[in-house]
Amino acid sequence: MPPAVQSATERGARTRARILDATAKVLNANGYAGTRLSDIASVAQLQTPAIYYYFPSRDDVIEAVVAAGHQSVIDHVAGALAKMSGASNLDKILAAVEAHLTFVLTESEYASASIRNLGHLPAEMRTRQVSRRRTYGQMWKDLFEAGQQAGEFDADVDIADARMLIIGALNWAPEWWDPGRGSLEKIVSEAKRFVRRGLAV
Amino acid sequence: MPPAVQSATERGARTRARILDATAKVLNANGYAGTRLSDIASVAQLQTPAIYYYFPSRDDVIEAVVAAGHQSVIDHVAGALAKMSGASNLDKILAAVEAHLTFVLTESEYASASIRNLGHLPAEMRTRQVSRRRTYGQMWKDLFEAGQQAGEFDADVDIADARMLIIGALNWAPEWWDPGRGSLEKIVSEAKRFVRRGLAV
Repeated sequence: MPPAVQSATERGARTRARILDATAKVLNANGYAGTRLSDIASVAQLQTPAIYYYFPSRDDVIEAVVAAGHQSVIDHVAGALAKMSGASNLDKILAAVEAHLTFVLTESEYASASIRNLGHLPAEMRTRQVSRRRTYGQMWKDLFEAGQQAGEFDADVDIADARMLIIGALNWAPEWWDPGRGSLEKIVSEAKRFVRRGLAV
Repeated sequence: MPPAVQSATERGARTRARILDATAKVLNANGYAGTRLSDIASVAQLQTPAIYYYFPSRDDVIEAVVAAGHQSVIDHVAGALAKMSGASNLDKILAAVEAHLTFVLTESEYASASIRNLGHLPAEMRTRQVSRRRTYGQMWKDLFEAGQQAGEFDADVDIADARMLIIGALNWAPEWWDPGRGSLEKIVSEAKRFVRRGLAV
């Protein structure tokens, strides 16, 4: 591909990425209802109509961020688990807790934007995310079932409810945590301590 | 007051309550962004303009539900704690876990509507709820500090982070739990088991 064309394509890809980055920021700050194209444009340092060159509508930009956010959590946690082969299921769960929490609190505004707005998206948009949610839920479910079968857990644990309570605690963290409350290491370590004590024999 | 006047006042109060009940339902189903006055009117079996007789705007109806929802959680948990005098701080925390979870999952659509939409309300509306949030946070904080001072907790517990992780797990529950997943008793019992194991010496 001739350099000039490539450079135009690259510039387009960079602008598109800038719009998505800006949307993740605005979604985190204002929520789905309060996310206006004019705010996105202002953060991305563009004129509002320029956004329509890349996305047909406000909801299309938002859905692109939500989808990327979901997928990035899946990839990040799967990546952390891939390094844990041979570990106990409980240790894998603790690795997933650390990966999920670290990612949504500090690494990805896409991930926190998608989690925090999950219940607030239009029904059709939510429906299109169902298979991603299932994939992620299944990763956790497999670990909990294997842990129970291996006898790693307190006999009284209800693995379905325990799993959802844990994921809920992690998903709610972006609502309250900020670096001013203490280091990321501290919250991650407390979350892992709590989960270990709550689950382990 | 003459009976005729009283009856008109009562009818007004009942209609106002019906609008608020409808708003709580619609907020739970559609979120802040998707809550339209026409949906509220349809659930309340009123004509949309009739709502303006009771509330100046859509945001005023929503804020009334959010404020009532917050306050009802505070009152309900405070009521449960009032019956626990003489109990350990850990047992009081478990009573608060049970009261909060039961209330948001089955007793109050106002409470779940206010929790689920917390991060999605306009900034000014959120600011006006700050003192209620502080009151509620302080109730929990007092229990955790007293429990730590009384040596009831695992020495490694970080009481600030533990408290917020627990409240997060409870607050996220309306996002996933429904009676089809199992009884309320089962989820409440797992939440209490988890918290007891996570905190206790």
